[in-house]
Amino acid sequence: MPSLAENKRRSFIIHFTSHSYFNIACCLFLRGQESAGIVTSDGASTPTYTSHKGMGLVSSAFPPEALLKLRYGNLGICHTRYSTTGFSELQNCQPFVVDTLHGKIAVAHNGELVNSRALRKKVMRHGVGLSTGSDSELITQLLALTPPMEELDTPDWVARIKNLMTETPTSYSLLVMFKDVIYAVRDPYGNRPLSIGRVVPISKLHSTGAGEEDTEGWVVSSESCSFQSIGAKYYREVLPGEIVQISKHGVQSLSVVPRPEGDLPAFCIFEYVYFARPDSIFEGQMVYTVRQRCGRQLAIEAPTDVDVVSTVPESATPAALGYAQQSGLPYMEVLCKNRYVGRTFIQPNTRLRQLGVAKKFGVLTDNFAGKRVVLIDDSIVRGNTISPIIKLLREAGATEVHIRVASPPIKFPCYMGINIPTKEELIANKPQFKDIAGYIGADSVKYLTVEGLVSAVQEGIASVQEKEDNMSSNKVAELCVYWG
Amino acid sequence: MPSLAENKRRSFIIHFTSHSYFNIACCLFLRGQESAGIVTSDGASTPTYTSHKGMGLVSSAFPPEALLKLRYGNLGICHTRYSTTGFSELQNCQPFVVDTLHGKIAVAHNGELVNSRALRKKVMRHGVGLSTGSDSELITQLLALTPPMEELDTPDWVARIKNLMTETPTSYSLLVMFKDVIYAVRDPYGNRPLSIGRVVPISKLHSTGAGEEDTEGWVVSSESCSFQSIGAKYYREVLPGEIVQISKHGVQSLSVVPRPEGDLPAFCIFEYVYFARPDSIFEGQMVYTVRQRCGRQLAIEAPTDVDVVSTVPESATPAALGYAQQSGLPYMEVLCKNRYVGRTFIQPNTRLRQLGVAKKFGVLTDNFAGKRVVLIDDSIVRGNTISPIIKLLREAGATEVHIRVASPPIKFPCYMGINIPTKEELIANKPQFKDIAGYIGADSVKYLTVEGLVSAVQEGIASVQEKEDNMSSNKVAELCVYWG
Amino acid sequence: MPSLAENKRRSFIIHFTSHSYFNIACCLFLRGQESAGIVTSDGASTPTYTSHKGMGLVSSAFPPEALLKLRYGNLGICHTRYSTTGFSELQNCQPFVVDTLHGKIAVAHNGELVNSRALRKKVMRHGVGLSTGSDSELITQLLALTPPMEELDTPDWVARIKNLMTETPTSYSLLVMFKDVIYAVRDPYGNRPLSIGRVVPISKLHSTGAGEEDTEGWVVSSESCSFQSIGAKYYREVLPGEIVQISKHGVQSLSVVPRPEGDLPAFCIFEYVYFARPDSIFEGQMVYTVRQRCGRQLAIEAPTDVDVVSTVPESATPAALGYAQQSGLPYMEVLCKNRYVGRTFIQPNTRLRQLGVAKKFGVLTDNFAGKRVVLIDDSIVRGNTISPIIKLLREAGATEVHIRVASPPIKFPCYMGINIPTKEELIANKPQFKDIAGYIGADSVKYLTVEGLVSAVQEGIASVQEKEDNMSSNKVAELCVYWG
Amino acid sequence: MPSLAENKRRSFIIHFTSHSYFNIACCLFLRGQESAGIVTSDGASTPTYTSHKGMGLVSSAFPPEALLKLRYGNLGICHTRYSTTGFSELQNCQPFVVDTLHGKIAVAHNGELVNSRALRKKVMRHGVGLSTGSDSELITQLLALTPPMEELDTPDWVARIKNLMTETPTSYSLLVMFKDVIYAVRDPYGNRPLSIGRVVPISKLHSTGAGEEDTEGWVVSSESCSFQSIGAKYYREVLPGEIVQISKHGVQSLSVVPRPEGDLPAFCIFEYVYFARPDSIFEGQMVYTVRQRCGRQLAIEAPTDVDVVSTVPESATPAALGYAQQSGLPYMEVLCKNRYVGRTFIQPNTRLRQLGVAKKFGVLTDNFAGKRVVLIDDSIVRGNTISPIIKLLREAGATEVHIRVASPPIKFPCYMGINIPTKEELIANKPQFKDIAGYIGADSVKYLTVEGLVSAVQEGIASVQEKEDNMSSNKVAELCVYWG
Repeated sequence: MPSLAENKRRSFIIHFTSHSYFNIACCLFLRGQESAGIVTSDGASTPTYTSHKGMGLVSSAFPPEALLKLRYGNLGICHTRYSTTGFSELQNCQPFVVDTLHGKIAVAHNGELVNSRALRKKVMRHGVGLSTGSDSELITQLLALTPPMEELDTPDWVARIKNLMTETPTSYSLLVMFKDVIYAVRDPYGNRPLSIGRVVPISKLHSTGAGEEDTEGWVVSSESCSFQSIGAKYYREVLPGEIVQISKHGVQSLSVVPRPEGDLPAFCIFEYVYFARPDSIFEGQMVYTVRQRCGRQLAIEAPTDVDVVSTVPESATPAALGYAQQSGLPYMEVLCKNRYVGRTFIQPNTRLRQLGVAKKFGVLTDNFAGKRVVLIDDSIVRGNTISPIIKLLREAGATEVHIRVASPPIKFPCYMGINIPTKEELIANKPQFKDIAGYIGADSVKYLTVEGLVSAVQEGIASVQEKEDNMSSNKVAELCVYWG
Repeated sequence: MPSLAENKRRSFIIHFTSHSYFNIACCLFLRGQESAGIVTSDGASTPTYTSHKGMGLVSSAFPPEALLKLRYGNLGICHTRYSTTGFSELQNCQPFVVDTLHGKIAVAHNGELVNSRALRKKVMRHGVGLSTGSDSELITQLLALTPPMEELDTPDWVARIKNLMTETPTSYSLLVMFKDVIYAVRDPYGNRPLSIGRVVPISKLHSTGAGEEDTEGWVVSSESCSFQSIGAKYYREVLPGEIVQISKHGVQSLSVVPRPEGDLPAFCIFEYVYFARPDSIFEGQMVYTVRQRCGRQLAIEAPTDVDVVSTVPESATPAALGYAQQSGLPYMEVLCKNRYVGRTFIQPNTRLRQLGVAKKFGVLTDNFAGKRVVLIDDSIVRGNTISPIIKLLREAGATEVHIRVASPPIKFPCYMGINIPTKEELIANKPQFKDIAGYIGADSVKYLTVEGLVSAVQEGIASVQEKEDNMSSNKVAELCVYWG
Repeated sequence: MPSLAENKRRSFIIHFTSHSYFNIACCLFLRGQESAGIVTSDGASTPTYTSHKGMGLVSSAFPPEALLKLRYGNLGICHTRYSTTGFSELQNCQPFVVDTLHGKIAVAHNGELVNSRALRKKVMRHGVGLSTGSDSELITQLLALTPPMEELDTPDWVARIKNLMTETPTSYSLLVMFKDVIYAVRDPYGNRPLSIGRVVPISKLHSTGAGEEDTEGWVVSSESCSFQSIGAKYYREVLPGEIVQISKHGVQSLSVVPRPEGDLPAFCIFEYVYFARPDSIFEGQMVYTVRQRCGRQLAIEAPTDVDVVSTVPESATPAALGYAQQSGLPYMEVLCKNRYVGRTFIQPNTRLRQLGVAKKFGVLTDNFAGKRVVLIDDSIVRGNTISPIIKLLREAGATEVHIRVASPPIKFPCYMGINIPTKEELIANKPQFKDIAGYIGADSVKYLTVEGLVSAVQEGIASVQEKEDNMSSNKVAELCVYWG
Repeated sequence: MPSLAENKRRSFIIHFTSHSYFNIACCLFLRGQESAGIVTSDGASTPTYTSHKGMGLVSSAFPPEALLKLRYGNLGICHTRYSTTGFSELQNCQPFVVDTLHGKIAVAHNGELVNSRALRKKVMRHGVGLSTGSDSELITQLLALTPPMEELDTPDWVARIKNLMTETPTSYSLLVMFKDVIYAVRDPYGNRPLSIGRVVPISKLHSTGAGEEDTEGWVVSSESCSFQSIGAKYYREVLPGEIVQISKHGVQSLSVVPRPEGDLPAFCIFEYVYFARPDSIFEGQMVYTVRQRCGRQLAIEAPTDVDVVSTVPESATPAALGYAQQSGLPYMEVLCKNRYVGRTFIQPNTRLRQLGVAKKFGVLTDNFAGKRVVLIDDSIVRGNTISPIIKLLREAGATEVHIRVASPPIKFPCYMGINIPTKEELIANKPQFKDIAGYIGADSVKYLTVEGLVSAVQEGIASVQEKEDNMSSNKVAELCVYWG
């Protein structure tokens, strides 16, 4: 029978027990908290698919009775949605399942197709009505459509996936389930991450002895940090352009679709800077370590003469500790997150709204009153948060407040599915940016350079690649950096 | 009109605007997340009371339509409940309101009456039926009952409160609302905390100019950390045994009921060690600073020869930083909390349950692999959490794992309303405690001594008391320390 | 284990199986749909009481997990609330339970105390704080209070109930549960109904063979119609002023408290006219039969020269059939209830609101087009419903529409707990009543006389009383008739 | 702004006000209570479609905030679903909307396609993946697919609908919305009903004066009974095979697709017997009147020598009254429906389940005790209901109980979307049917003959047809009668 594990911010897993006859447990984790969906297959030759979708975090989207439905699954793909296109209705929930001449396929994907408008038109010209605006449905209908379906016993899904990859180069990580097989696919540019983990039997994890519900199998996730939650071990990344098959026969690399000649791989650097959880691994290195290196590099590029180094909790803490280590300055906590959930009802222009960010942090006055503080942040997007924090610190007695940002100024939104505001909203594009320190009330503000960030990221990749087998001609060392 | 601010773990406030004719906003905050309640009064001579109670965190207990009901209030008392007696039904929700010959009184309290059984019997012998098992109802009926009610225009509530305080010495902090007055009361031993804050007009907080909804007034809370969330400033603590009146005329100390001869004050030391938020202030000192001093004292009492000092996030972090500062060892993060909410349905003996605490933390391998680690924890209650954490660190490559605990071993449960397991469940009372390091798999385990803890707490009180006026013969310098 | 049976409009029952060691199932049913509550006792000498309360119809107030809590009960009292005083919050839900020196008592009641204000004052003068405005709490505290509580092993609850009955003469039917006994009480005037039913084992009801869950026992209800739903048989009414004890020893009449000298019994005539379900039995006669006699009497008092007799479905149907039988005119259906639930959101002045009652009925045109119709209604309260119905019939082709009302004009609201509008709202008190036919658009309107109604009711009582034993000096033959 | 009117058992309407610039309000009503959906269009040349779907009755499926979304609609199609294929998930909810090369089309349908399996295969062979098992999606994709889509400005939807009607002859009533037009379609056999109503301005309905929100327009519904609920008047039926266009230019008949040569029309006779509400009109006659005629015919075919004629409420009442009129026997009510909702939790084999149908009816003993009763029912499907009713009547004193059924024995399930049990479950196919009276405990059982039923239905059609224009070569006089 299945059980549910949830990660509030990122992903979830449905865990099948060893009563499943395949004895494998294979799931996809993607990120998001607007909605969640799952499709399981019993893996039979005429398979039964079971699905459930719900709005909100996994805990509310998956009530116990929903899990009960899924009990006969042996493999499955899941999805949690973080809307990048503004529509958040249940019918847009992934995975998308359609019946074809050969049986049902289920598709989950993370990313955004660069040429989705042209592809939609192509599909509709063929006479297919599209019931949602989602790329997932588009991908699924494209897989059903081309090449023309023939009444074979077993259609060549790998050829169809390859065909899809030539029609749209990026950006997507993809899971396709058909009967008893799951295909895990990363686009040729490697823009979105995808990792494989191995589910280890509890009896091997702990000596306490597992019992009949123990299991082993494989999991796939956008972030490797989710593996530990279910007792799985990081195995490897899916390579850019790679199609990996997961079945009862294990994990098998089927093909690597090359990028257009001359193009370089382009892994999204925002995963390192901001988006991923610090204990995730990309390109062989831990995100925490990359952020710490960014902090060190920042201390070299933008030193300060202060008494205390501190952080805007919690995402900037690795960078702040890196900055403190490099600079030799003492690290102190100046703010504590109060897990405050401020809600303002009825009339919007109330006192509470005016209080703003002040209600989200507690101030640890004794740690910095009468001292000069450098505060490390991971990024400044709109600039709305940092300004009231500086005011709080000054009111509580900080004599100087300097800001150091562990990434370069963001000037452009992302077209690959990362949720960044429009160009106009970005502080780096506003006139005030010329005197950003004055605007936000800091004594000084400095950013990490693009070169500094790239070197902090690549330093770890280089050291890793020498150790690893070079499984693919698609190098993983380049990054998608939109700081133009 | 009212608006709501919520603090997930602790307390909440209903914020009245200046449309209230008193122009004061007076609320009580207590701690807990099982249920929440509020009673407001419009302060008229024949007042209208409005109340709302709900289960769960404030955000679910107070839907917008509930707030709308409260819009005509000018003063009010609130309560959030963290059940210590095991019953968590709506009818046990505070505040408790009863109609008396002189009008309605509302009572909210934090703590547990030591002689509640005898008091219940006394009240019932008088012919009063008690509809709940809660101390709040008992306190309310005692206030209504003794001395015998006479048909005066204005009953002497202060005399009734004093009478109550002689009938039961501890443990309680109390709010009593009658018409247009709130009485804030702390028991003669000062066992439970209670602080007063002053609501500052936004126009004085920020230069941005407030507008018509600005307000000023007073708030009372178990923890001063909640003041900042609503733009209030810490004013002072209610003293042990003190009755403070809050009304449109401001804050007024009415009386201080003395302790029994020879007894010392007894503020709950668990507030410092574990329960309070680090930015709260008790006895003039910030909790964070006390915890940091405990860490320093621990480094003196129980040094280690290791490479890295770290913390079990997040409550032990101040102590860990204190230990690092005192010892000169580098501070590193080894675990990240993954905000994981594990839920196991259907069958309890699943793999996920066996994974246990491993699913709550991500491991930051690169920070400690190949190194010797000392891990600081704030307390070890049952011992169920620390053991799998040690295993996680060893599996990820720590060569040694030493545990240092920033408080003494807990041997007795608390009878004053702090939620501690029974004596049998406490690890310090189990046979395994003789070889606690072996039992939990650590290389060594050492605790802070009782003397060390008391001195770490009192060091700050002493320095404060010299500065302050000594408002009361009830000294605040003693602690309730149940380490026997 | 318990199971739930619900009657949407009236009452509910929790059904205990024979696993209960008493092998009795004793419950109270009262009427209402705003909230529902139950308290069960396991009947032990130190009994465990279990309770559940919820808002709305029983089906929503009692989710399955609530029933599960009650599984260890052997006897219990229930209540469904139809607010007559305007407050409908969970804390006003009955039954009301309080702990006394001798243990918990639970009280449920139907009715309204005529002297509740004076009684509240008396109780509060004694020092008891009242937490609700409900008569139920007042009754419960009165039972606890007087005579003064002594520390006996078994308090004399019957003496306390008698004492209560002298302090307040009407209007109430009452259930009091203490440990393993339930007292069923009707006020000395007999204003509110109360019937006893006997739960018959299924094996005696049907030959199909019951099995281990079969049970027998006793039930008490405001309306005998609910007995059939659970396989119980009507046993008898509780008499005015009677105290009946129900326990494992069966049903026992303990006492009959007399009315004040010279006063007559006063059973609410609205139960016959409007409120009760037609298959209920009061004073030995079926409500349906009384209504049919009212229709016959109406045909005698107010004949018409028409083609068709019809009804406003469904409550007036017995009277309409009686009218048809007496007059010899053919009975036809002209309206069908469409179970339409019209809801108007957002903007109140919409088309749908203007359509009014027309959307609640379908018109069976073919049955009356071109004919003269007399429409029988059971009562006209505000006059808002009958007017658009007449218009509907005329539009569909009725050549004449005459109205005959099977009860007299209502001129006064009820002070005994029946929900009737204020005097001003009653159509019989409005100036338009002089030309009521013109006002509502009918060709003629006539009412049954008070004498006609009383004789229609008493005709059945007389015939019954001769058959029955006269168990009480409190005659049941008089009625509470507020047609002044 | 829209408002909602609901009919619990059948249908609902969203009512647009005259603020809609078209000043038309056009909706489809279909029947069912498992789920409800709506799609509205603002009618612009590049239209905005808004949709909402929900589970359960309209009142729960359409919360106020859902209606708010629809406020900018000028026309729309709705659907309420009564699952005939067993799947009741949100994604199967109609209307089905897809985007095509020319814009979005929305489709709602009532019925079941006889050749759906072959059609699914055809569509999938073309490379279209089908995301549900519903006929609605299949119809929608067929409309998008054939003939091949060309990039015209305005595709010929009428040609596509005609093409669909040649591909699948029955059974469906259909609404297709495209931009500012709705096509209402009935299959060539006329198996499922479909009626058009005209929305009349309130100012014309009532003299009370409407105001600015008044409106006029058109509605389409499976049952004409729903028109009155919204102030619409019955206009006419859509004819078998007819395509009617509804737009701002009014109602226009576009085409009538003929049936295969030699075949007769086949309107479902179950609509008359059981399914439709009595005030609906089919083929020019009121359903109530047809049922009454069936009762009369039954009295002729199967007379009884009894004292009282009665009904199993409520659906058999017209037939019972017809039987009484024809036979001259007195009509009496013997049962009252108690609107009882029995729910049995936890353990299925409880007492309540054994009580069965007895808990659904109250017995009006006085009306028949000591008498011989003939009970009219509209149909006997499984025979589970009538048997315990007979037992109830006998226990309450009926000396004889005869059953007369106002339709013939049902021997075959329906393949056209009417929910009838499998052949095996039908009482008419069981061995016991030979002695049905003995089996169900009646003194005698007789059914209406097929010829009797058909003549009772056709008697009304004949008289109507002479009055009407013969708009179509598809005669409406034949019936789909599966009593073969």
